[in-house]
Amino acid sequence: MQAAQCSKPARPTKASELKARPIVLKLGGSVITHKDVPFSANEPAIERLAGEIAEAMVPQLVIVHGGGSFGHPLAKKYVIKDGFNGKFSQLLGFSETHQAMITLNNMILKALIHCNIPAFSIAPSSTIVSKSGRMVAKIDERLKRLLHIGLVPLLYGDAVLDSDRVFTILSGDQLVVAAAIQLDAERIVIGVEGDGLFKSDPKLGRGDLIRTCTLQQLKELGKQSRKTSAHDVTGGMQGKIAELVPAVEKGITVTIVNACKPQRVCKALRGEEVIGTIIRRE
Amino acid sequence: MQAAQCSKPARPTKASELKARPIVLKLGGSVITHKDVPFSANEPAIERLAGEIAEAMVPQLVIVHGGGSFGHPLAKKYVIKDGFNGKFSQLLGFSETHQAMITLNNMILKALIHCNIPAFSIAPSSTIVSKSGRMVAKIDERLKRLLHIGLVPLLYGDAVLDSDRVFTILSGDQLVVAAAIQLDAERIVIGVEGDGLFKSDPKLGRGDLIRTCTLQQLKELGKQSRKTSAHDVTGGMQGKIAELVPAVEKGITVTIVNACKPQRVCKALRGEEVIGTIIRRE
Repeated sequence: MQAAQCSKPARPTKASELKARPIVLKLGGSVITHKDVPFSANEPAIERLAGEIAEAMVPQLVIVHGGGSFGHPLAKKYVIKDGFNGKFSQLLGFSETHQAMITLNNMILKALIHCNIPAFSIAPSSTIVSKSGRMVAKIDERLKRLLHIGLVPLLYGDAVLDSDRVFTILSGDQLVVAAAIQLDAERIVIGVEGDGLFKSDPKLGRGDLIRTCTLQQLKELGKQSRKTSAHDVTGGMQGKIAELVPAVEKGITVTIVNACKPQRVCKALRGEEVIGTIIRRE
Repeated sequence: MQAAQCSKPARPTKASELKARPIVLKLGGSVITHKDVPFSANEPAIERLAGEIAEAMVPQLVIVHGGGSFGHPLAKKYVIKDGFNGKFSQLLGFSETHQAMITLNNMILKALIHCNIPAFSIAPSSTIVSKSGRMVAKIDERLKRLLHIGLVPLLYGDAVLDSDRVFTILSGDQLVVAAAIQLDAERIVIGVEGDGLFKSDPKLGRGDLIRTCTLQQLKELGKQSRKTSAHDVTGGMQGKIAELVPAVEKGITVTIVNACKPQRVCKALRGEEVIGTIIRRE
């Protein structure tokens, strides 16, 4: 991929900025890929988002992206999430799933660097062993090291080793929340393809965007929501809401915005007024 | 990169094979890239080597590759090995160097998977923090997990965090030896662009290939050899020899072969008679 020219200024790394609490940004797989076309990156979206991230000038930023049409179809085909079934074909599928994620990650990394963002990829499978699909290890030490230097850690949903299942899928959403809690993040910004959380499924034409939401309301929404995507093996919006609860409980504000619409991610990163759903503890 | 069709059989993962001691294979940067053309992979060589590795059917294999014209020019341009100089441009260069290595690694990974080798990339910078350019941490636990399942860990020389220098370059050669020692490897096979070690520089037309070499002779060679490549920031052949000493001291046999010539890597992996240099403790 050749990213478009990006004239954004280099991120400053002043000493005062190192004291800022980090923001954790999630770029949804549906935003950065064409979800219905396997292995198809949405390059214009990736380039635009890299530009928006550069423009936002967040002093301490961690980025996590999803798998979209790279990781998900393979993870589903080979049933990676459920663990190793002992067959060689699935083992090769585990390798393939990780390889697909590296391919997507590399495109995003390249676009970020092109916009003068010193992003540094951390492959979750190189450092994490999950337990029954859950992340139990701490990753904050490495992330803090990277942030302290002025780098922007870039993680992604990945096919990882698992102490109970041999291997599994670790979702980007789980990484977002773990990183945010472990780093005592100021905020989480989640960029998805919809405008935020809705009282009912907007695809059914009955959607009302929820502008602000408390922890209690979030929990209730989690019970109501259903899986909305055929490809998303990590649980779609229902899974996302369930993952977010522990972060909101810790007092971390979550902003869900439409990352397909220009400037929404940039405004959310800056903490400016933006169309979306803001979730606060109370 | 689209790898050529590879009709090699899937690697078996019989229980008996799990008892085999691993072989660590190094694919030199000069072999897998066109070293004088920045960011130029030698795709036919990568595809051929993937086929040879599949053909060799090594039950427990770890692969490490170098940076060639991907990692080295950037590492040199931004003086990454010496550590962080506090400038933003170098920080971006650190990101770029890692990104270039991911790009090369992904090509090799793809070619291996295409040949039914369940290779699994481990990004050294995601899991290792070096100390003054030296690898101090253990990586055997993760490698053993991967090997035990039947996967082929794939590592590479990388731009890594360093506890003294902030960041540095960790050479593929250092990883080869650390992995071999920590895993109690049976053998190390090093694929380079020359036929092996020479009594004097073969490029000067006075070369005599050393077919067998003891530890003592290796140490003497190390004193004589000079840096032979302009791009190799990890020390060229001199650095390679110095890195190998601790592995040979542990009794691990090292075979250096010309990976540009067909079948040499395959034969070396199988332990068959091959043109090259075999280094033994005594």
